[in-house]
Amino acid sequence: HMDSQPKGGRFDGILGVMGALEVLRTINENKIETEWPIVIVDWTNEEGSRFAPAMVGSGVWAGALDRDWVYNRTDINGKRFVDELERIGYKGTVLAEKRPVHAYYEYHIEQGPVLEQQGKIIGAPKGILCLHWYDIYLEGEANQVGPTPMEGRHDALCTASEMILKVNELPARMGGNMVSTVGEIQNYPNSRNIIPDKVHFTVDIRSWDDDLALKAWEVVKKDFEEIAQRRGCPIRIEETWRVEHSPFDQKLVQKVLDTADELGYPALHMVSGAGHDASYMNQIAPTSMIFVPSIGGRSHVEVENTKWEDCEAGANVLLHTILQSAMEV
Amino acid sequence: HMDSQPKGGRFDGILGVMGALEVLRTINENKIETEWPIVIVDWTNEEGSRFAPAMVGSGVWAGALDRDWVYNRTDINGKRFVDELERIGYKGTVLAEKRPVHAYYEYHIEQGPVLEQQGKIIGAPKGILCLHWYDIYLEGEANQVGPTPMEGRHDALCTASEMILKVNELPARMGGNMVSTVGEIQNYPNSRNIIPDKVHFTVDIRSWDDDLALKAWEVVKKDFEEIAQRRGCPIRIEETWRVEHSPFDQKLVQKVLDTADELGYPALHMVSGAGHDASYMNQIAPTSMIFVPSIGGRSHVEVENTKWEDCEAGANVLLHTILQSAMEV
Repeated sequence: HMDSQPKGGRFDGILGVMGALEVLRTINENKIETEWPIVIVDWTNEEGSRFAPAMVGSGVWAGALDRDWVYNRTDINGKRFVDELERIGYKGTVLAEKRPVHAYYEYHIEQGPVLEQQGKIIGAPKGILCLHWYDIYLEGEANQVGPTPMEGRHDALCTASEMILKVNELPARMGGNMVSTVGEIQNYPNSRNIIPDKVHFTVDIRSWDDDLALKAWEVVKKDFEEIAQRRGCPIRIEETWRVEHSPFDQKLVQKVLDTADELGYPALHMVSGAGHDASYMNQIAPTSMIFVPSIGGRSHVEVENTKWEDCEAGANVLLHTILQSAMEV
Repeated sequence: HMDSQPKGGRFDGILGVMGALEVLRTINENKIETEWPIVIVDWTNEEGSRFAPAMVGSGVWAGALDRDWVYNRTDINGKRFVDELERIGYKGTVLAEKRPVHAYYEYHIEQGPVLEQQGKIIGAPKGILCLHWYDIYLEGEANQVGPTPMEGRHDALCTASEMILKVNELPARMGGNMVSTVGEIQNYPNSRNIIPDKVHFTVDIRSWDDDLALKAWEVVKKDFEEIAQRRGCPIRIEETWRVEHSPFDQKLVQKVLDTADELGYPALHMVSGAGHDASYMNQIAPTSMIFVPSIGGRSHVEVENTKWEDCEAGANVLLHTILQSAMEV
């Protein structure tokens, strides 16, 4: 994918598209003929930062998401995804039809600190964490802050603040391997001398263990309802998106590990904390990914970076694994 | 004043300007000649909802704020107050010079629940609470939420959430008569799968007791610094505005009470929790205010409302108090 986040992502997604392009060029320049055709895909809206959920291109293509439901997703200003695609000339004319795929590889930066910390160059994820997105809407009662006594206030921002802390404490409380985050908040009317009467915020919960993630959500949902009740701020919850944890094809993952080994790159069998289009592709075709290190483990920020040699290493692994799959009969 | 808040304020401010206009019309229609000239003022930017601080028109005129400092205040998009005044054709050509004032009356809705709760029609505030505005800027570390472990995160939104709850608990903790509120928050990059790396929020503290408000600020500031330190999110604090509590002219306040009594309106000697231009005018001239009830105590919201008979009652008190002052020799 080539879409990104508000503040950064020079490698996230784009490296995969450019790497694939370089691989195809190399294959063509060397006049190699393969048994299977090789197709590069640049998936639309993998990030979901403007139109939630994420990974909608691969989701629709793989048949996991309904095309018209995705078309009708709106941004914060109420603009529809399909209208914006049309406006910028990116709405294609060919139907997004699922076709048989012999093997799907996705080349990507790690977006985390693990490879760097362990001094490895190639990551071969055994799969992707499950991913749960929720949208929370709170209703308070607006009033002038000066003449309105503290008692009897229904402050939607205080209510949200309590909930945000609950989300942050959730992994410590649940034990097990999971992360949970509130990344986005809208506060209304957002004026310093008015008690907030409307807040929207998001919850992102991820784990390799689907049941743990669901249990965590049930726990925090109960907290939310108690807090909303106590503070007199009615709550509305939307379960925006749910992707189960996605174990990749073991043979393909092993191919990535072996290829890295043959090329002399130290490799790591790991887990992907970030969601990727590979998650949906994994539902319909043998799938695996190739990771390269993110400097400082930073991603979705301006300083996001990956060493040139590592980019090259990843592209080499991509070339040789694709060639192996494409030569199979 | 006639400026208002993002979501409402059909009476807040506007009633005072319309009431004053009606009073002058009545005086003229009855061909009454006064000893003192009567001037209606429609102060600019009393609310400060787009350009903080508030009450800048009266503040500059009374000599409490510097005109050029006010001109250079910017909104959230970096637009300057003076440029926007020019753009909409509201920048006057006459110098804002302090002139001697014999008496200043301001007619306003209460914006709180007290008059309604006590069944009174006219409020005669003995003065206005002190008012402290602060702007808080937090810095976190952005990263992809999935592959970034909970340990070692520097989440600016969680840091802000803890602080917002501290502000909310402050009055209960300090005892005494005060209110404190966070009404406004900006979160960056505000994307659901990125750990927030920048948060700005506001603090509004008010009390009749200046020392209590200052002490409360010192307490909560210490909390802020401890939380910022613990969560590894550097804090920057701007003290945006400070107006001391403002006790009105006792004779003028008594005039309002007596006039209401003579006209048969039940009146209440009270305190104003909201800031008003009367606060700055009180620094240079004998000042008082006339309050009428807000239905349900609601203000700065769409449902803000005041009964027609109460509007009339307040205007009658304004007419007769102004006439008394204007006839003095």
